[in-house]
Amino acid sequence: MTSGLIEYDEAPPEVRAVFDDIMTTRKIDRVNNFWKALAVHPPTLKRTWESLKEVMAPGAIDPLVKEMIYLAVSTTNGCGYCIASHTVAARKAGMTDEMLGELMAVTGMANETNRLATGLQVPIDQAFRRPE
Amino acid sequence: MTSGLIEYDEAPPEVRAVFDDIMTTRKIDRVNNFWKALAVHPPTLKRTWESLKEVMAPGAIDPLVKEMIYLAVSTTNGCGYCIASHTVAARKAGMTDEMLGELMAVTGMANETNRLATGLQVPIDQAFRRPE
Amino acid sequence: MTSGLIEYDEAPPEVRAVFDDIMTTRKIDRVNNFWKALAVHPPTLKRTWESLKEVMAPGAIDPLVKEMIYLAVSTTNGCGYCIASHTVAARKAGMTDEMLGELMAVTGMANETNRLATGLQVPIDQAFRRPE
Amino acid sequence: MTSGLIEYDEAPPEVRAVFDDIMTTRKIDRVNNFWKALAVHPPTLKRTWESLKEVMAPGAIDPLVKEMIYLAVSTTNGCGYCIASHTVAARKAGMTDEMLGELMAVTGMANETNRLATGLQVPIDQAFRRPE
Amino acid sequence: MTSGLIEYDEAPPEVRAVFDDIMTTRKIDRVNNFWKALAVHPPTLKRTWESLKEVMAPGAIDPLVKEMIYLAVSTTNGCGYCIASHTVAARKAGMTDEMLGELMAVTGMANETNRLATGLQVPIDQAFRRPE
Amino acid sequence: MTSGLIEYDEAPPEVRAVFDDIMTTRKIDRVNNFWKALAVHPPTLKRTWESLKEVMAPGAIDPLVKEMIYLAVSTTNGCGYCIASHTVAARKAGMTDEMLGELMAVTGMANETNRLATGLQVPIDQAFRRPE
Repeated sequence: MTSGLIEYDEAPPEVRAVFDDIMTTRKIDRVNNFWKALAVHPPTLKRTWESLKEVMAPGAIDPLVKEMIYLAVSTTNGCGYCIASHTVAARKAGMTDEMLGELMAVTGMANETNRLATGLQVPIDQAFRRPE
Repeated sequence: MTSGLIEYDEAPPEVRAVFDDIMTTRKIDRVNNFWKALAVHPPTLKRTWESLKEVMAPGAIDPLVKEMIYLAVSTTNGCGYCIASHTVAARKAGMTDEMLGELMAVTGMANETNRLATGLQVPIDQAFRRPE
Repeated sequence: MTSGLIEYDEAPPEVRAVFDDIMTTRKIDRVNNFWKALAVHPPTLKRTWESLKEVMAPGAIDPLVKEMIYLAVSTTNGCGYCIASHTVAARKAGMTDEMLGELMAVTGMANETNRLATGLQVPIDQAFRRPE
Repeated sequence: MTSGLIEYDEAPPEVRAVFDDIMTTRKIDRVNNFWKALAVHPPTLKRTWESLKEVMAPGAIDPLVKEMIYLAVSTTNGCGYCIASHTVAARKAGMTDEMLGELMAVTGMANETNRLATGLQVPIDQAFRRPE
Repeated sequence: MTSGLIEYDEAPPEVRAVFDDIMTTRKIDRVNNFWKALAVHPPTLKRTWESLKEVMAPGAIDPLVKEMIYLAVSTTNGCGYCIASHTVAARKAGMTDEMLGELMAVTGMANETNRLATGLQVPIDQAFRRPE
Repeated sequence: MTSGLIEYDEAPPEVRAVFDDIMTTRKIDRVNNFWKALAVHPPTLKRTWESLKEVMAPGAIDPLVKEMIYLAVSTTNGCGYCIASHTVAARKAGMTDEMLGELMAVTGMANETNRLATGLQVPIDQAFRRPE
């Protein structure tokens, strides 16, 4: 069976440090199960959190758009946990029902046309090729 | 072998009508190979174009963001044709190198954490569940 | 780099025996590259060929339909080699342009609705559940 | 959290119109959860239903075969909802236990050989290439 | 709905023979649900078991490593059943918490960099190409 | 079109620092295209390299096994670049033809049985479930 979930009270110091940073950064008072599961392997917990914090920070793309991209990818991969958690995160960042509807529509169409282009072996137009 | 590409000059009227609408809508003077390949089956050409036109139109999500979502999904699915064509489309809609870098970073992280959550069989937190 | 392709003339007896059976069964006079690549590992060559021969034989589902299912799956997985080879195989078994068009349409729609159902976390209807 | 399910009684007119058409076309007296979930975004509901109705109608490929292709794709993508609903639909269209067994066997083999061809980087045979 | 699970007591002789071989080979006294589900189609049950027995036997790669590879693939594909059963199998073969943590870390990173390489359309270095 | 490849001579200092560390760590005198492509977005280059260096270092799982897991995942995802580069890396770490053959056999079987378990909706055995 898989490893369990590590709760804060039973966590070693290096895990607590990451949990504390997650709670502070996100202004929440408990971490969700994803982090408790990763805590079984502290180096993966620490590296994953620090990478995610950097990647999802405001930048050239704003946080709401980043959350919607995350949801589109999670939907394409069929990760139930990720869909559930990032739908909530996107909602908090401002996603409306209308936006969720459009996001799913775009995600669905991309999956459809990806297969049409692949299955019909469409050659890449000269205009779309990267320069040699 | 797969069907070939249907050029405008040899296309039947119902195909030309779709090609004309694509060129008018996108303000371009030739359609790309994807549409020429779909033209082998006119009902699929027409339905796919009309769906795509509706889905990618400005709405609650703006066209640049829609193109970036398309690129994130195409990247996740590994569709070479779609990545090439939608990278160009996103560039035209305003995507900078910086934005492409962040888009890939988010797409990559989502693919990574999707597998961590799935492989560790993380149970969905009560707070993320849809109401019964 | 990956292993190369094993040609008939340089193949050991257990590989030649499989190559011979492929050519006899399919009534062709040379095997395609897939088998030459698998020949680097004779047990995998033999097992894969015998499994494929059994699975693709006429049964409750006819060979043309089996080839179309193979093409739909290969398209969904984005396997370029498999799409190319099974499109040819399906053509030989009787697939017309019209059928290829419909096959791609169904494959595309399934990929689209798969993501809509997953992304919206649609609960399975009682009527669709397997009996406990 | 994700949007909920829209029941007929609370649905706006444009949603009811689609629900009515689904029930009439399929000769059933209630729609399944997939459509109730899509109803949160009426344009996606309408477009998806009309596309699906067109694609799954009898044509060059018969409806039972289309349902089996749908099930093969849904299985490859791992969409639990879609597998459950299309298994029921394929059964209604005439799929026997024997056919389901063969369908899964073909789907499984295609997934296996897709990876063998990809992982061994098998070059496409000249005979399988599309004409330039 | 899908086919059910075939229990030993109700199984026909060719199914019992496979169940017996599974139990003998694995030194267990009951088969798990995967085999009971496959038993609905005896030829698929027999072929799958014989293939798996051959592939997972000790060889140039040891059984524990084979189980970890199986888990990495199942995680990438998002197969919940397979993740659960192969996590248990890998544990029995000697996988520790530390190894599971590293396995997930490698699997996650591979999924991430696979998308970065694909999305940025990285051309294959001359040094990595297979000889023509 | 996608961003190009950044060569060492034209790279800014923060990119050169990463390139230098890659060359030192791997004892090579030039970086491969993957890193040159990532260099378009220096933070992603730096984070990805540091994560990969940590994850692929010797640990509870040895480097050859990690490379084989990477290859299995890349094969499952169909990333051509990654398959080519990690096949070379695995060879350098000691993978023989025999091991590559077995690796592909296991990867192929996992992909096959993943779909059989998913498509037949096999319920997880009590013995495989994580404790509540």
